[in-house]
Amino acid sequence: MLLKVKTIDIVTGKKSVLLNEKDAKALDVRVHDRVSISKGGKTTVALVEITHTFVNPGEVGVFRDLVDDLSIVEGEELEVAPTRTPSSVLYIRKKMRGGSLSRDEIYSIVRDVVNHALSELELAAFLLAEEYLGMSMEETEHLTRAMAETGAMLDFGELVVDKHSIGGVPGNKVSLLIVPIVAAAGLKIPKTSSRAITSPAGTADTMEVLAPVEFSAEEVKRIVRRVGGCIVWGGALNIAPADDIFIRVEYPLGIDPRPQMLASILAKKLAVGAKVVVLDIPTGREAKVETMEEARQLAQEFVELGRRLGINIRCGITYGGQPVGYAVGPALEAREALEALHGKGPLSLIEKSVALAGLLMEEARTVPRGSGSQVARDILQSGKALSKMKEIIEAQGGNPEITPDEIPVGNKHIVITSPIDGYITSISNYAIRSIARAAGAPVDKGAGVLLHVKAGHVVKKDQPIMEIFAERSVKLAEAQSLFYTLKPVVIEGMLLDEFPSY
Amino acid sequence: MLLKVKTIDIVTGKKSVLLNEKDAKALDVRVHDRVSISKGGKTTVALVEITHTFVNPGEVGVFRDLVDDLSIVEGEELEVAPTRTPSSVLYIRKKMRGGSLSRDEIYSIVRDVVNHALSELELAAFLLAEEYLGMSMEETEHLTRAMAETGAMLDFGELVVDKHSIGGVPGNKVSLLIVPIVAAAGLKIPKTSSRAITSPAGTADTMEVLAPVEFSAEEVKRIVRRVGGCIVWGGALNIAPADDIFIRVEYPLGIDPRPQMLASILAKKLAVGAKVVVLDIPTGREAKVETMEEARQLAQEFVELGRRLGINIRCGITYGGQPVGYAVGPALEAREALEALHGKGPLSLIEKSVALAGLLMEEARTVPRGSGSQVARDILQSGKALSKMKEIIEAQGGNPEITPDEIPVGNKHIVITSPIDGYITSISNYAIRSIARAAGAPVDKGAGVLLHVKAGHVVKKDQPIMEIFAERSVKLAEAQSLFYTLKPVVIEGMLLDEFPSY
Repeated sequence: MLLKVKTIDIVTGKKSVLLNEKDAKALDVRVHDRVSISKGGKTTVALVEITHTFVNPGEVGVFRDLVDDLSIVEGEELEVAPTRTPSSVLYIRKKMRGGSLSRDEIYSIVRDVVNHALSELELAAFLLAEEYLGMSMEETEHLTRAMAETGAMLDFGELVVDKHSIGGVPGNKVSLLIVPIVAAAGLKIPKTSSRAITSPAGTADTMEVLAPVEFSAEEVKRIVRRVGGCIVWGGALNIAPADDIFIRVEYPLGIDPRPQMLASILAKKLAVGAKVVVLDIPTGREAKVETMEEARQLAQEFVELGRRLGINIRCGITYGGQPVGYAVGPALEAREALEALHGKGPLSLIEKSVALAGLLMEEARTVPRGSGSQVARDILQSGKALSKMKEIIEAQGGNPEITPDEIPVGNKHIVITSPIDGYITSISNYAIRSIARAAGAPVDKGAGVLLHVKAGHVVKKDQPIMEIFAERSVKLAEAQSLFYTLKPVVIEGMLLDEFPSY
Repeated sequence: MLLKVKTIDIVTGKKSVLLNEKDAKALDVRVHDRVSISKGGKTTVALVEITHTFVNPGEVGVFRDLVDDLSIVEGEELEVAPTRTPSSVLYIRKKMRGGSLSRDEIYSIVRDVVNHALSELELAAFLLAEEYLGMSMEETEHLTRAMAETGAMLDFGELVVDKHSIGGVPGNKVSLLIVPIVAAAGLKIPKTSSRAITSPAGTADTMEVLAPVEFSAEEVKRIVRRVGGCIVWGGALNIAPADDIFIRVEYPLGIDPRPQMLASILAKKLAVGAKVVVLDIPTGREAKVETMEEARQLAQEFVELGRRLGINIRCGITYGGQPVGYAVGPALEAREALEALHGKGPLSLIEKSVALAGLLMEEARTVPRGSGSQVARDILQSGKALSKMKEIIEAQGGNPEITPDEIPVGNKHIVITSPIDGYITSISNYAIRSIARAAGAPVDKGAGVLLHVKAGHVVKKDQPIMEIFAERSVKLAEAQSLFYTLKPVVIEGMLLDEFPSY
């Protein structure tokens, strides 16, 4: 059927066209079916959306995503015909029926994900089949490789190490210490990280307070060759591009299927060519992993998948039952990390960072097993890590001489004090995360929460327990109101009887 | 945030608004999050879609679905604010985590389905949780009641019976015989049926060849009170409106979760107030149900769910391994049904119809148990069923005196003959359905397939085995080409060695 193009300047994130319902009926296609769109010798496949008003019979509405694809111009004619269900969709259905997928079948799915050829419903079906039916380690390996190989693959031409946290605990700015420590030890560590999705600060958001984080693959290579390490936003590098597309569907569904989590993390490590990786698995109340048993199980899966991929993995199961350090939010975290590099940071942050950096150096055979964390501590205390961080900041185009005090934080703030004498029973990851986001983090870099106490500390009546920082008064008020709703800090003697309501 | 309305004349089938990505960032909302939209004192909730081009910062794109909802006009200002996840979504997540849902939780979900307040992803998550985790009979009962009660409920003020087939076998025009038979026996049967989704002819499509099928609830009541029965399209009655919305998501996912199938069928029976229902479960190769064991299990679930709903259900497990009768496609099926009412129809059609009509009359206590099918056969052979059908056709505004020969079928047709002597081993439901649809059914009423043989028949070389009818030459050619690809009729000695490739 020849239809006249009406371009629609909306980016839908998938390849779709809008048909008038009369034409859809004549073509015998329904919403979510596919049609082939041909122009000259070129053909592509698009998902069908149907209207009875926006485009007239005889017209086809083409969204921005496809316009660029086929260089389509307003008013020209396209041949539109029904087409068969793509094989990737048949493979997704096979998985849904409990079948197990071959290498080629998984690659076909991932290629179509990256080409935006699958609808959100089809992506959801695939992810939910993973969630409910699981995937074998072999399938997970294929998924990881497919996700890596459908994006950019970096080759540094020498041993590359990396570090990753599965996330879930606020204030986890350890990468800003680990990267300069191991780079100072002579290892190459091209750390790519994400921006926050539901957390108050991704590593990329925090690093961005100190220096730009968006670089091309070539620029990253140049920086790492020169100074040994970087902390950049992975999104600009086109590594494992399927991951962002999967996440856009996982997030509204509130799921994080295990095989997808494994593949998502290791595909990026595969793409940067890392051969040695240390994985941080924060474990504790309100973290992603709540028990040691779960953490060990997950660690085992990471190690096994790593083995299949030729990546030597060491997992650090770390305490994740409360925020790491005291600061939550991009600027506050950058400040705390810089203080730690200056030798003045909180114990929990320093201990966690040197432990993980130590594991990484041991695994890379830079230091003997058992001595990693001491070597890391020496590098930190000697100021070598700080010097290296300055080199990294400079290489990424930031000001290397910035001091912690010079980092601007939100100029609206309130101090919350303890209503009684007592000691801190617990600090809720969930509540701290929610309050910091309500305050404006990560969009407002200066917004966040600065704790004055941690679990186990003794407090006196009227002693400050936390501060909330914001850049906008309305956000400060929202965060303050959330503080009273969520009660993030539990002080013995006061809230114990409210435990069951948590 | 106050945003200026830009109306977008696209019906999306859900409540959504389009925000510029800058505003979305400022509101801290992502695609698929929700915002509240307020105008005057009225507030509604909409799903967020994001663009960086189609609407500018400071504008909000409002799709047609919402425009009518809040009487929104181009250029006016709306207050747009982030809002919490609705409880229905939290209940869907509860189900996804393996929880079991209460009556109130299920009603909350179904109400939001009917109000178009859930995204397709959320619907998919609910349906896939049903598919993989199942539902208890209690949950299924709540789902059924919620689906019925969120739509129109008909009350005929006297005993109402009904008939339904779970579908899956082509040519199943038995309702056109059963309805007049049981109405002639004095029962009230307000048969609502669907149009074809993936089949070549829904009962509503077939009946529409003989008379209009779109009526309001009041008109249906009037027709049934006057002549005892009707065969109308359920879609115009607003009964169990959630069903169509669920189906729009099930279809592209290729799923039909058991609890949803049970609820979908019985919600409509509940809505028309049927107290006695006979269910046709076609069973056999390439039908929805392939084995007797599955069929009995399904029958048991229908009976149990019926008992909970106060509906007396009798299931007929019927042979579904090949098409019912010889005709497939709206006009061809209407013609065959009318021939059967004239006493000249094929045995398989007549036997199935009188058996099911008999069960229904027995269950309604109109006739003694064991004598139902004989009474039904008498009504059919005496011409009483034909007279009743004429009354129904007339009451629905059709021509009661139409004869089978006067029903127009596609004027393009080809006859396909047997290439050898042999006997028919099998006829594929899947292939016949695909060929009839390729020929243009159900959109082209006159298109379809007319078999000349059924499984077990002996054929001679060059004897006709089937005819394909179409209204358009291009469709005829497509159907013919599909015939050679799909090989719908297997003749012994010829294709046996190709069995594994089926």
